[in-house]
Amino acid sequence: MEDYRTGGFTLPGEAGYEKLTLELARKWGADVIRDSDGTKLSPEIVEAGYRIYSTICIIREHNAFALAHPETQQQTFLCSDAVIAEGDTLTIDLLKGYFAEQFMLNESEASIAYWEVWDRTANALVPRENWSYAHGTITVKEARAYHRYTASFLCYRIWEEINMYNHTTNHWTTEHLRQLDPRNPLAWAYLKDYLKKWCEDNPQTNVIRLTSLFYNFVWIFGSDMRRRSRFVDWASYDFTVSPDALDAFHARYGYRLTAEDFIQGGKLQATHRPATRPKLDYMDMIQQFVAEKARELVDIIHSYHKEAYVFYDDSWVGMEPYGPYFASVGFDGLIKCVFSGFECRLCAGVDVPVHELRFHPYLFPVGLGGLPTFSEGGRPERDAMDYWLHVRRALARQSVDRIGLGGYLHLTQGYPAFVDAIADMGVVFRRLKALHAQGAPEVLPIRVGVLHFWGRLRSWTLSGHFHETDMHTLIHINEALAGLPVEVSFLNFDDVRKGALDGVDVVITAGREGDAWCGGDAWKDPEIVEKLTAYVYEGGSIIGAGEPSACAGGDTRLKLAHVFGVDVDKGEYACHAPWAYTVSPCDFAIAEKDIPVTAGVRLTDPQTQVLLEKEGVPVLTMHSFGQGKAVYMGGMHYSAASARMLLEMLMMLTNTQGLSVAWPSDPRLESAYFAKSHTLVVMNNSRESVETVIEGPFGETKISLPGERTVFVEVEHVPAE
Amino acid sequence: MEDYRTGGFTLPGEAGYEKLTLELARKWGADVIRDSDGTKLSPEIVEAGYRIYSTICIIREHNAFALAHPETQQQTFLCSDAVIAEGDTLTIDLLKGYFAEQFMLNESEASIAYWEVWDRTANALVPRENWSYAHGTITVKEARAYHRYTASFLCYRIWEEINMYNHTTNHWTTEHLRQLDPRNPLAWAYLKDYLKKWCEDNPQTNVIRLTSLFYNFVWIFGSDMRRRSRFVDWASYDFTVSPDALDAFHARYGYRLTAEDFIQGGKLQATHRPATRPKLDYMDMIQQFVAEKARELVDIIHSYHKEAYVFYDDSWVGMEPYGPYFASVGFDGLIKCVFSGFECRLCAGVDVPVHELRFHPYLFPVGLGGLPTFSEGGRPERDAMDYWLHVRRALARQSVDRIGLGGYLHLTQGYPAFVDAIADMGVVFRRLKALHAQGAPEVLPIRVGVLHFWGRLRSWTLSGHFHETDMHTLIHINEALAGLPVEVSFLNFDDVRKGALDGVDVVITAGREGDAWCGGDAWKDPEIVEKLTAYVYEGGSIIGAGEPSACAGGDTRLKLAHVFGVDVDKGEYACHAPWAYTVSPCDFAIAEKDIPVTAGVRLTDPQTQVLLEKEGVPVLTMHSFGQGKAVYMGGMHYSAASARMLLEMLMMLTNTQGLSVAWPSDPRLESAYFAKSHTLVVMNNSRESVETVIEGPFGETKISLPGERTVFVEVEHVPAE
Repeated sequence: MEDYRTGGFTLPGEAGYEKLTLELARKWGADVIRDSDGTKLSPEIVEAGYRIYSTICIIREHNAFALAHPETQQQTFLCSDAVIAEGDTLTIDLLKGYFAEQFMLNESEASIAYWEVWDRTANALVPRENWSYAHGTITVKEARAYHRYTASFLCYRIWEEINMYNHTTNHWTTEHLRQLDPRNPLAWAYLKDYLKKWCEDNPQTNVIRLTSLFYNFVWIFGSDMRRRSRFVDWASYDFTVSPDALDAFHARYGYRLTAEDFIQGGKLQATHRPATRPKLDYMDMIQQFVAEKARELVDIIHSYHKEAYVFYDDSWVGMEPYGPYFASVGFDGLIKCVFSGFECRLCAGVDVPVHELRFHPYLFPVGLGGLPTFSEGGRPERDAMDYWLHVRRALARQSVDRIGLGGYLHLTQGYPAFVDAIADMGVVFRRLKALHAQGAPEVLPIRVGVLHFWGRLRSWTLSGHFHETDMHTLIHINEALAGLPVEVSFLNFDDVRKGALDGVDVVITAGREGDAWCGGDAWKDPEIVEKLTAYVYEGGSIIGAGEPSACAGGDTRLKLAHVFGVDVDKGEYACHAPWAYTVSPCDFAIAEKDIPVTAGVRLTDPQTQVLLEKEGVPVLTMHSFGQGKAVYMGGMHYSAASARMLLEMLMMLTNTQGLSVAWPSDPRLESAYFAKSHTLVVMNNSRESVETVIEGPFGETKISLPGERTVFVEVEHVPAE
Repeated sequence: MEDYRTGGFTLPGEAGYEKLTLELARKWGADVIRDSDGTKLSPEIVEAGYRIYSTICIIREHNAFALAHPETQQQTFLCSDAVIAEGDTLTIDLLKGYFAEQFMLNESEASIAYWEVWDRTANALVPRENWSYAHGTITVKEARAYHRYTASFLCYRIWEEINMYNHTTNHWTTEHLRQLDPRNPLAWAYLKDYLKKWCEDNPQTNVIRLTSLFYNFVWIFGSDMRRRSRFVDWASYDFTVSPDALDAFHARYGYRLTAEDFIQGGKLQATHRPATRPKLDYMDMIQQFVAEKARELVDIIHSYHKEAYVFYDDSWVGMEPYGPYFASVGFDGLIKCVFSGFECRLCAGVDVPVHELRFHPYLFPVGLGGLPTFSEGGRPERDAMDYWLHVRRALARQSVDRIGLGGYLHLTQGYPAFVDAIADMGVVFRRLKALHAQGAPEVLPIRVGVLHFWGRLRSWTLSGHFHETDMHTLIHINEALAGLPVEVSFLNFDDVRKGALDGVDVVITAGREGDAWCGGDAWKDPEIVEKLTAYVYEGGSIIGAGEPSACAGGDTRLKLAHVFGVDVDKGEYACHAPWAYTVSPCDFAIAEKDIPVTAGVRLTDPQTQVLLEKEGVPVLTMHSFGQGKAVYMGGMHYSAASARMLLEMLMMLTNTQGLSVAWPSDPRLESAYFAKSHTLVVMNNSRESVETVIEGPFGETKISLPGERTVFVEVEHVPAE
């Protein structure tokens, strides 16, 4: 009988800790040993009979080349802080307020040709003849007194951002690493040669773990510690830009991008905001470029009979796994680090042979939030368990192929509870994987379509990890959905235009007016409003959270106010009384704590049922519209209770009975029923022991489950009807 | 010696209670007796030697005429509730959801010519040939399925709104009164004849108290008790409209107003919102029309040797006392009912011979809010005192000529504490009036300019009473200013363009993005931003509350973000870190409870000092900008503490010392120092006894003042320097 103690596990080895490496490899059932950023493997480890992953950050560790050819370094647009004109001339110190160790002005003619100076007060571009550049400073003439001016300019980034993070957070003291731009032909030839030579020099490596590709997510440091991390966006494209890229864009699309297409009044184009049309074109160009270049690397790796896995983080921009070009790269595996269930689903759903999760905590003294993990005051086994509870429920819905860890293995010494916890998780992971291999768990016949600006391109994720985006209700909803027995797809507004609502039972839209999750100006298109209206009127369902379908213009703030039976008042309803209401009883359990207030919500229809109010504002409502129904929520924070509420809401909206999935009635528990394997998996998401009876197609089964534990119950075979 | 027991007091007499009327006239020191809506005076009262005010609501009490000539009744535009098209035709029941007793469709050809049908989904006018009207219903053809349609139409108002209010609130059961439109020539001739005849029939009346003129503030009732009062706006012009008015507008301005100019997607144009250009033109036309017609009435009244006072409430629309045409009417007096200090200042500042306040509570069983006053559970003396504390501090700053009451005098029986309280207030009022007559109280050399869309036209008020508008910070600020020893003026954006900031030491702007108090799109004009920027940069000061200078577009939400050193993030700052801050000590006393949070406020300048934060959001900040300073507040609720804070803030911003006004250091007290009379008036705004020492130009004086009491202290004469 399989004991599930071995396989599908990637261990971070560490030279100098050979004994520990091999001992933990055994204990955790590793079949692969990897190096990490900052660690090396020794011959003793490499030759111990495990498969070997070697980490390569392809654009980094080439400082000599970068210094010899500074024009091959990566660049970005920046916008100066605004300067007030006191008279008719003013000077702008371009890099003032930015971290001098990160940026160096690109003063070339080709670069300055793209620079711009703006009168932000008049919202007008300053004519080129009215400004000049010298010594890091722009001088503006014929300025208008008391107007504010900014300059947009290109500069090289001279410190690779992950290296910069590790220096500034983990007190690294090594040389600052630079990064090359693969768009530069000289750099690209050099990088390919480098990779070939590396492959020749490292015959023992089985898998090259690309960490990751070319362009880091955007991370702009300030000079002042009070605003050190000026801008961080996990999915922004600013770090891909260069005069060459802009020229290539012009050649391809027939129109020129300007600095302002990137700068946007200094706000840049964050992923949380809808992109402009030029930005979408630019993203497409970059995605295709990244895929083409990645394909070349993968071909080289394959030519040395190695596999190419890619780590989906850090320098990942342009390689969206749900983008149109990802499959063309030919990666052999995708590795995703996970804190949350949605990240697990994100990885699991990608079209690639091997899906691997890198668990948290990373084996570092401190975690991403700056709190201790493997150091004084840390409780890494607690952190690991908290993340595991999120990941496990997603793994129960959809399997991946491998799990693993990263970092400095020696730090685990003195944390035996952590070592045991990881071993236990490995066993559960392998049992779940084996069950999935025999047949998927039962799901309810509920197809959820999450609608936002990005649609499938940003399936599951918003922009980065949960804790970086938890001010957005949608990530809470995605996290809940990651473990629920329903089908989930992600739609954008073009999909809606093309009829995608036909394949959806419940649409979810959750955002704030103007953001990408709400949809921005997409709601100004009557066709979108018409399609959603028809969809619900003819029997579909919709859940809206926050300011769903909100945009300015028209006679209601929410463009689906008639569907939801509520609108959001931002002052336009001055002097108009809302419909008075009383709170109605609700058929499903409301996670009261987890629904925040959205200011200004008011009833537009006396038939709207208010299910919960807070501070005098409706925060949960139900509205019948034609043959369909609409639920409005002020927002949602993810918790066991709110995930359960969401499931019950989906079932209520679709008149679905839950017996087929054998879902536990106690909200602390969740389950996955693998009918093919006659196995019911029950997970305790709480820390308390729970005893309960679970009903399913197999009848009833009694469950007694200690806190946080997983149980695999063999149940009677029930022939399908 | 004057005992201040008589004069300047208007008593509401009541037939059947002659003894009570004369007794209270003596007790309260009345020199005038008036009738009220619903009461009559008997010969015994009229002939008792008092001056007599007679109330006339000129457009009301003509039901026979109105029924004989229904086309002379007043009208309004209404917008139907939206109807969703299920196919290519739909019908709209125009008055569905409106109170059938208030409205009657105007089905004339001239009326229907102004009607409109809108596809609100496409935001498009439906061509006239695609809809038809019959029997209260509009039928639309060639509709687009799942679009929402509304109809805008004209109807007569067949129940005068104040009469409707008294029926529905105070259970009146008399005939529903109608109202005539003075724009109709037939009605106007009739009304003038009526007034002449009335004057002839009532020789004993000294003053006709017009209650008030022609057009009521807008008050639209719904059919459903859950939304009975659908729309109420004290300063909206919808009830002035008619096909005749629209045709007159066309003749005058050369362009036509449409239904949508009034309807605005069903929102109407509430006073809290900035008006469109056509609305401003229309208001001007109505104001001029109202003044012309009022002048004719006043001329008639004067020809009978009576005086004409106007009550500034109810049917007041178009006769703004700070409007350009008010003085031309030639009223002999203005009467304002007051709950608050700002209403007292509003009245006192008008260019008219006699200013009179009608105190609250009105002698009715229940108050405006529906709570008991002169009935079981009521404490009218408490209500009167609460209002008085607000009014008194304003009276101490600026005098009026008269005070009085209204309603059913007999209701005061059984409320001796109320009777005594009014008598006491009368004495204080008369003493203050006598002091003002000798010379104004000292003020600080601080000229405050309150900036908003309406400027001087809506001096002091927003739209109605304090309790109707208390969701707007500005009314709290105006109420505080009403009792502070500073000069106050009200500016609009055109005034700013014309250089009005030259006459101001501190600008106050307090509103929410898009509303009239913030200024709406005025902030899109670079000239406005430039003028305010220059003003502060060169040494002026500004206080902004809520979302000051907020509007969409440009690179900051607050167009004066650079001046305030803060901006408001509505999602656009996604991924941008704000400046971190620590809270700084503050030179003035912060009314912490009275400053609410405005969501999204963040620092844009590291030099901005945060003086108070709540829920992690800065709610009170200070920022030096050039030679000037800017204070930002999340908002303000009026209280003794916040009024004091505002004063100290003004003094801090202008480097003003307070000795000249002898302001008490204890925030429960306020004062007025009448240097000419060597009199210091000290008012206790709290219920507690306060002992303190007050410093002034006269030296120090010790004060011991019971709760709510006023003291008049004679102080040494100090020669001016």
